[in-house]
Amino acid sequence: MVSGDAMPSFADVGAAAERIRLFAHRTPVLTCSSLDAMVGASLFFKCENFQKVGAFKFRGACNAVFSLGEEEARRGVATHSSGNHAAALSLAARLRGVPAHVVMPRTSRAVKRAAVAGYGGRIVLCEPTLAAREATLAEVVAETGATVIHPYNDARVIAGQGTAALELLEDVRGLDVVMTPVGGGGLLSGTAISVTSLSPATRVVAAEPEGADDAFRSLQEGRIVPSVNPQTVCDGLLTSLGTLTFAIIREHVAEIVTVSDAAVIKAMRHIWERMKIVIEPSAAVTLGALLEGRLPVSGLRVGIILSGGNVDLSELPWGQN
Amino acid sequence: MVSGDAMPSFADVGAAAERIRLFAHRTPVLTCSSLDAMVGASLFFKCENFQKVGAFKFRGACNAVFSLGEEEARRGVATHSSGNHAAALSLAARLRGVPAHVVMPRTSRAVKRAAVAGYGGRIVLCEPTLAAREATLAEVVAETGATVIHPYNDARVIAGQGTAALELLEDVRGLDVVMTPVGGGGLLSGTAISVTSLSPATRVVAAEPEGADDAFRSLQEGRIVPSVNPQTVCDGLLTSLGTLTFAIIREHVAEIVTVSDAAVIKAMRHIWERMKIVIEPSAAVTLGALLEGRLPVSGLRVGIILSGGNVDLSELPWGQN
Repeated sequence: MVSGDAMPSFADVGAAAERIRLFAHRTPVLTCSSLDAMVGASLFFKCENFQKVGAFKFRGACNAVFSLGEEEARRGVATHSSGNHAAALSLAARLRGVPAHVVMPRTSRAVKRAAVAGYGGRIVLCEPTLAAREATLAEVVAETGATVIHPYNDARVIAGQGTAALELLEDVRGLDVVMTPVGGGGLLSGTAISVTSLSPATRVVAAEPEGADDAFRSLQEGRIVPSVNPQTVCDGLLTSLGTLTFAIIREHVAEIVTVSDAAVIKAMRHIWERMKIVIEPSAAVTLGALLEGRLPVSGLRVGIILSGGNVDLSELPWGQN
Repeated sequence: MVSGDAMPSFADVGAAAERIRLFAHRTPVLTCSSLDAMVGASLFFKCENFQKVGAFKFRGACNAVFSLGEEEARRGVATHSSGNHAAALSLAARLRGVPAHVVMPRTSRAVKRAAVAGYGGRIVLCEPTLAAREATLAEVVAETGATVIHPYNDARVIAGQGTAALELLEDVRGLDVVMTPVGGGGLLSGTAISVTSLSPATRVVAAEPEGADDAFRSLQEGRIVPSVNPQTVCDGLLTSLGTLTFAIIREHVAEIVTVSDAAVIKAMRHIWERMKIVIEPSAAVTLGALLEGRLPVSGLRVGIILSGGNVDLSELPWGQN
């Protein structure tokens, strides 16, 4: 069993697939002829917006929680991430019957707190600074003995995220490219591990918002460039790469392309209108990059992992008449 | 082969299923544990929002167009409906390689015209009155010899709409109730024919907006009560029943329940948020009725046909922050 700070292998992805099989949805792969026509390629959308908690994050959190030994699990898990990872960790912990402690800033939105609470997470409020979040998390761990599950820089989490690409490659043969968004790099690095092992001729390409292009620059400069004051509609892609995810991405990812927020919003709307499915802005960076011509894919078969569908329907990024 | 003004039978639904198989999507049946928990029943959603042109209407239009003889088909088809039926008829005609003439009022919205034109329909504009629409349609028919395909009061259309329930009953056994919206009654009467034949113990129940409750009143009064000045967010459910659809509904439909627009909007939003799929307001009347307690379904297995997903994303029926 791989630990959190080891380098995950494809065998770990296979083990994760077995471990989460009873809990995670095997999400469908959808196609859309009008989007194919727009891009001039054959697109295969792996719909993680239909995953439990509405995002791929459940795969990694579930694998991490069910990788723990009995004694360790009994003490619970903890995180200070407050987005999809917190919801995913709360549900995974509930499924195992153990507590999940989620440190959230006092300023976090009610809708996010409600999601975590709804999945059974125990919310611990703190001041809205990174220092306060880390200090509060340390206190929670000292009190409870809970295991901290990092949202992406954790081998168990990365292996879990890799199961989405594993399923995609089982369902669709002969892909020329597989694309994912990149934020902290958990989905991208897990995807890269699966694709490299199962289909070495397939290129793995990530898309990243122009206003949060730290992963793009990290790959260019050969070091982790931190994400400082990111400006983008993609609220799931604000974080910096981790040491584990960066090492995997550097080795296995062919290219990171950047995309404007305008193209992201256009792509998101096209997917809602044409495919009749709800995705969040972060999930639309890949199609946005293709619509903007940032990656030549004419005539190719392109797998796209739609990362999630958690969006506030009262705050849509396009105007209302 | 059944003609347009005959009474359709279950054999006609079976023939329609064969006829449209190569053209229409076999849409998925989705479930959602959180909606089940809200309603206290097991819900099975037949997703016609994923159908070609984004609505069940393609089934009926496709069956009608491919039911025509060679000579008849060559002269084309025509309608003065300007919503989903017009788009569906245009696409079906294009697939058969024949013209579709769509009479639309000059005041119709650009987005509706673009949809029809995008599917290859030939748009004929007229003044925005029913008299002008009918006169213009008559002129088009006189000029071209096209066959008018009524959006619902046509046996071929009804038989085509019945294929959605046919597939639902093939995919899900032991349903206690099957629900559809009711506007002109094409989907409801086709559904009633399929369910009555395949699963006589299953009750067919329709939901209708309170502000457009002509079908409810028609069933109560035993005659077709016309829809006069309907007021509802459900723009697909404004029409009156037809003679064919009313006869079938009267014989086979257990109950029509009404629902407030507030509940429709709430149901629509729940489906977007929980199921991550896009449906139009008209498709949400069924879940809306269940949320409002208009039909006791506690512990039952309920099939729900989600009729379509064509909604203007710039005019959502809930506020934006």
